[in-house]
Amino acid sequence: MTTSNAIEQTKNITNGVDVGQIMDLISAIDSDTGYASFQFRATNQWVNGGQTRSCIKEFYAGNAEDTTRKRPFILNSDEPMIAAGQDSAPNAMEYVLHALASCLTASLIYHAAVRGIDIEAVESSYAGDMDVRGLLGLDDDVRKGFSKVAVNMRVKSEASAEELTELAMFSPVHDIISNSLPVEFSLTTY
Amino acid sequence: MTTSNAIEQTKNITNGVDVGQIMDLISAIDSDTGYASFQFRATNQWVNGGQTRSCIKEFYAGNAEDTTRKRPFILNSDEPMIAAGQDSAPNAMEYVLHALASCLTASLIYHAAVRGIDIEAVESSYAGDMDVRGLLGLDDDVRKGFSKVAVNMRVKSEASAEELTELAMFSPVHDIISNSLPVEFSLTTY
Repeated sequence: MTTSNAIEQTKNITNGVDVGQIMDLISAIDSDTGYASFQFRATNQWVNGGQTRSCIKEFYAGNAEDTTRKRPFILNSDEPMIAAGQDSAPNAMEYVLHALASCLTASLIYHAAVRGIDIEAVESSYAGDMDVRGLLGLDDDVRKGFSKVAVNMRVKSEASAEELTELAMFSPVHDIISNSLPVEFSLTTY
Repeated sequence: MTTSNAIEQTKNITNGVDVGQIMDLISAIDSDTGYASFQFRATNQWVNGGQTRSCIKEFYAGNAEDTTRKRPFILNSDEPMIAAGQDSAPNAMEYVLHALASCLTASLIYHAAVRGIDIEAVESSYAGDMDVRGLLGLDDDVRKGFSKVAVNMRVKSEASAEELTELAMFSPVHDIISNSLPVEFSLTTY
């Protein structure tokens, strides 16, 4: 046994996830459900044309404002050439697909770790269809967003596809995309 | 008048958007509704623990596979420390907020441009609340995703807040988050 393996066994690390830390989080929530109330945040500024930039840093979790994240993450967006953009960054629809991908994968990995299921590899592909007549306001009967998203995930594991699907379905982003979510929108001018 | 302004007037550029190019897209769709069928795509690979990486390049638009985007965009994701991650990148929920932010802003900017409404600045903030008991599988009555998202947008423009809100509401990401969207999920093992 290598030293690395010895440390992993002591800490109960499965799929790279420190399961002990997740169990500590669950214990804290069992003692105080308020500990489970998280709030994630972003601010965004328009740059020019189709370009925008988000800044992501603060969040609330475990009954406190986070103090562990020391620097912000900056995310850019743009539109492709066909949509009169500069194509300097992914567009919003592509960010949705990345959000869904990262969430399905992380949910699978974490829940597998807690159940002691080893995962060797996960790869997935996403395709979101949209009819841009909705977005452009050309036809009120056409929805503005994707009409559907197709996901194909391949998982290298001895667990069954059925159980692994059940684990991926804990994904919060899958929930908010496949179900409706209240968005409280407020706009002021100056 | 500067040379730059002269070019902008010739090309009808408003808010940095080439309105002529958008009108050409609308004309192409008027002649052939198939031109409006877009498909955006992503592939994702699990890295380790809460870390994943997406690759975004190809898309279908205007009756053809895109040939203008010459290199892929790489997006990383991770989980914060409290969720046993390395906090090397935003998490999936934060990417959802960025997707919503970039989409609301770009939708407002483009529709304002087409209507000839000048926008001087747009800034917005996003807060998504979630009770992680849903995600963790601790309570079936708690939803897995955000319970709600609050958006506050400030726009420097002479247009009314009411009209600007109407323009932002063309956002496809606002549509898919605030309404339900079919996700066709398929998982295979190997």
